[in-house]
Amino acid sequence: MNKTETRARILEEGARLIHLNGFNNTGIQEVLNAAEVPKGSFYFYFQNKEAFGLAVIDYYRGQFLRMGLEHLKNRTKTPLVRLNDMFVDFRNNFELLDCRMGCPIGNLATEMGDINEAFRAKLEAVFQEMRDGIQAFLVAAQENGELTYELDTRDMAEFILDSWEGALLRMKAVGSVAPLQRFEKMISVLLGSYRPK
Amino acid sequence: MNKTETRARILEEGARLIHLNGFNNTGIQEVLNAAEVPKGSFYFYFQNKEAFGLAVIDYYRGQFLRMGLEHLKNRTKTPLVRLNDMFVDFRNNFELLDCRMGCPIGNLATEMGDINEAFRAKLEAVFQEMRDGIQAFLVAAQENGELTYELDTRDMAEFILDSWEGALLRMKAVGSVAPLQRFEKMISVLLGSYRPK
Repeated sequence: MNKTETRARILEEGARLIHLNGFNNTGIQEVLNAAEVPKGSFYFYFQNKEAFGLAVIDYYRGQFLRMGLEHLKNRTKTPLVRLNDMFVDFRNNFELLDCRMGCPIGNLATEMGDINEAFRAKLEAVFQEMRDGIQAFLVAAQENGELTYELDTRDMAEFILDSWEGALLRMKAVGSVAPLQRFEKMISVLLGSYRPK
Repeated sequence: MNKTETRARILEEGARLIHLNGFNNTGIQEVLNAAEVPKGSFYFYFQNKEAFGLAVIDYYRGQFLRMGLEHLKNRTKTPLVRLNDMFVDFRNNFELLDCRMGCPIGNLATEMGDINEAFRAKLEAVFQEMRDGIQAFLVAAQENGELTYELDTRDMAEFILDSWEGALLRMKAVGSVAPLQRFEKMISVLLGSYRPK
């Protein structure tokens, strides 16, 4: 493996282990073992464990972005249908993980938000990108006439994102995707019936 | 202090420290020090650290229940106004904690849900009680005519609870109560405009 491949491999295994066990419970040596990278080479790729954690957040961000953009750019269905399709796709992925683990960004916000300002700021930046992505569907729905009424698309996108994070948290507690299915249904209702007062 | 008072004091300090640092990062000795209880007496009150953690969940449950019942039993306002008042009260409490820490039940579900079945089951039971509480407001609103349309109150209560948990998670990331205020507004809109299809 060249340097870029080795770094990518460390990040991939780190992302998997941190998603499973959290940041503080994941040791550098454990990640290197999983990546089959020689001991001692970690600091060649990352300044310290914090820098590694921040790079893992970028890795998660890339995964969310890839899946989101795929649906955002698909022009064969209407924006609100594609928004729902995106959430269904994510649900299917979480179901493949046995409804465990939950959202890697939400988990890290819970674990690290209060104790590490660099993590908090970076996680909030990812949340804001996710919100921007959801808002893009809503704006497209306004433009093509699917949403026929006035709507603060940013506020609604924030609410949709936060509610999704809550549904993912509950998924872990209940051990099924029922909270995600409820979320999808209620957001459809909300987008279909919203009337500003 | 008698035995009951000592146990209550250990739980109170344990609840505070676990809310702040999580379950795995809270040591028994640290709790005993904070409670000013002699070393070695822990196992007189709790079989092990897990039993202690489960008792701390009961402590949190009691706090949520007390605040919820206060609003549920208040008959001077309509049910939906009281439901909103309850969320505003909780928001004010979270703001007093500088928007840090988040929901103790949600945090533990994230931290422990996948790794300890006794914790997961107990946390989900508390979520279900919280859902029942929210549902009671919705049922009362149907009975007094404030909700005039057909509504699956249980599904809606689940969605409200999960969305609140998500807003509390986001509060930690963004460092303000804005997600809670958005949640309150959107739930009012949803309850005011919901029309089943």
